[in-house]
Amino acid sequence: MKVDGVARRSIQLAADGRGVEIVDQTLLPHRFETRELRVLSDATEAISAMRVRGAPLIGATAAYGVALQMREESSDASLQRAIEALLATRPTAVNLSWALDEMRASLRELPPAAREARAYARAAAICDEDVENCRAIGEHGLRLIEALHERRAERGPLNVLTHCNAGWLATVDWGTALAPVYLAHDRGIAIHVWVDETRPRNQGASLTAWELGQHGVSHTVIADNAGGHLMQRGRVDLCITGSDRTTSTGDVCNKIGTYLKALAARDNGVPFYVALPTSSIDWTLSDGLAEIPIEERDGAELSCVRGRNADGDTVEVAVTPASSPVANPAFDVTPARLVTGLITERGVCEASAAGLAGLYPERSAQSASS
Amino acid sequence: MKVDGVARRSIQLAADGRGVEIVDQTLLPHRFETRELRVLSDATEAISAMRVRGAPLIGATAAYGVALQMREESSDASLQRAIEALLATRPTAVNLSWALDEMRASLRELPPAAREARAYARAAAICDEDVENCRAIGEHGLRLIEALHERRAERGPLNVLTHCNAGWLATVDWGTALAPVYLAHDRGIAIHVWVDETRPRNQGASLTAWELGQHGVSHTVIADNAGGHLMQRGRVDLCITGSDRTTSTGDVCNKIGTYLKALAARDNGVPFYVALPTSSIDWTLSDGLAEIPIEERDGAELSCVRGRNADGDTVEVAVTPASSPVANPAFDVTPARLVTGLITERGVCEASAAGLAGLYPERSAQSASS
Repeated sequence: MKVDGVARRSIQLAADGRGVEIVDQTLLPHRFETRELRVLSDATEAISAMRVRGAPLIGATAAYGVALQMREESSDASLQRAIEALLATRPTAVNLSWALDEMRASLRELPPAAREARAYARAAAICDEDVENCRAIGEHGLRLIEALHERRAERGPLNVLTHCNAGWLATVDWGTALAPVYLAHDRGIAIHVWVDETRPRNQGASLTAWELGQHGVSHTVIADNAGGHLMQRGRVDLCITGSDRTTSTGDVCNKIGTYLKALAARDNGVPFYVALPTSSIDWTLSDGLAEIPIEERDGAELSCVRGRNADGDTVEVAVTPASSPVANPAFDVTPARLVTGLITERGVCEASAAGLAGLYPERSAQSASS
Repeated sequence: MKVDGVARRSIQLAADGRGVEIVDQTLLPHRFETRELRVLSDATEAISAMRVRGAPLIGATAAYGVALQMREESSDASLQRAIEALLATRPTAVNLSWALDEMRASLRELPPAAREARAYARAAAICDEDVENCRAIGEHGLRLIEALHERRAERGPLNVLTHCNAGWLATVDWGTALAPVYLAHDRGIAIHVWVDETRPRNQGASLTAWELGQHGVSHTVIADNAGGHLMQRGRVDLCITGSDRTTSTGDVCNKIGTYLKALAARDNGVPFYVALPTSSIDWTLSDGLAEIPIEERDGAELSCVRGRNADGDTVEVAVTPASSPVANPAFDVTPARLVTGLITERGVCEASAAGLAGLYPERSAQSASS
């Protein structure tokens, strides 16, 4: 997607073909700055400090982190140390361990001298696969947008509501929930995005709004509280969110507050779609509410807000009484019954065991035989 | 309610019996400071700058504003000027025009020399009536809390979720939604309040959390996004909110985001009550969604967050990209079908035309004859 008119990925090789360039997302939306990762510790720091975030991008950064380390020292012990250091950065991220398993599998049988080149190649392939998956999600979602656009009586842009950031900043390019939006925009379909601020970390206000603005997509930031009202007034044609974890029955675990928007969409007859790569489906789960533990994050994310002060510096300010306790559950579960459909790189399906079995026949064969 | 252990009202006469003491709510929760209003312009400034807010408290402040002016100059022209200046401070506040009508009616037939004393007396009576109404709302709501408390299987406090600030800071004392909570607490019932942050103005995080904390009521601040998740997990026994305007059919117009919580309450079988003084019922309306215009407020309320910086100063920081548009609808409408019941100073009724007719028989007689 574009930044200042120039197409780029959220992670890419530096000009020397060895360093790895990321966007420092902690500075957005107020400052766009790239940062070059040169050694393993740059990569672990970037993930820990959330300069990169979003499951696919964390995986891609970890893969390049292994490559950076192989360049320094390609022994078995060095490979093991790199994987352990990267795994420790965000212990709960599913894509992180997936990407590191991929790197380990493709490197461990090789002689050390061959590992650097293979590591860079595999990391690049992980990035390219992510881009291809997101583009495919975009194409499938685009068909939904085109159909809705044709059916509407009114003129004016199609209004899409999204929550949190499931855009290109969370992936390598395109994004998941936003991929259909970017494709529609690039193909000349009039589209406008309602961007949920997404408290407490404000990923909507700071990241989604920024990336849509840079790419030239019409959008408006709203409080998380406003989406239901807009749906009541017919001002939302479609909701699309991402998913952090999806059960085999179509329950969706995503950023806290997603469930409330799904309820409002159902109450107002607004289609509610969830876009996700296959890698976020947890085939071992069948009941999201009962089985998915919800991460409770630091209350300071809620009690302190980061923003730009009058001097242009990014600072934190406290918004709650110092003596008031704060609770900060990071995700919620939207039951499949509230989800109109799931959009994966394979296509669109009903959010149900049967729907997913249709898109993933090899999985239903597996469970039948187990 | 108590501040630093001392009972007080949100507005009260100063020691000299002439000045009027308010709490400067723009400084909360970080600094508790009272401010004495001595002349009319102090009162208009306090309302305009939102040092006082909440419909009942705005009405009370306006009433005292007229009294302050009558003390300076009690002519007809002076009375008229005072009423006009006060009315212009927050043109849409229903209680403001109600209180000013009351003051005008009780003063205009009097000789100017008698107006000062009468104005102070009427303003004091308006305050006392508000306190009495809120206390009555509290008593009716307390019975609901007691019944729920007895019925629960679990030990531990009864968990109440509230949105925005409908506490004593919004009224003269007790509050509306929080009156039952304070009464329950004072009578020794174990109670805990989930306080919605209430973006964009953060009335929950800054005012509700502060006043509950000062009175010693157990509470936890949460993002507006979190309430649905807590209800799914059985961690909310009861929702109570206030209402800015209630139709004759029980639709409730309240702070943006109330509707989303009502949807989640319905989806999870959690009782959702709305507490309101009779003065907030608009008997001329029968369809809240179709008939209530929703105020669109300044986008800066969303794009800038006020809080305390590291130096202890209250400052504003920008949280959205400077180039991103922002929309800020201030209220939404919760349809009566999602409201378990209305709590007014007369009692508790179903949120419906029939329910309200039961509590207000004189009103249904009126409509039958019209």
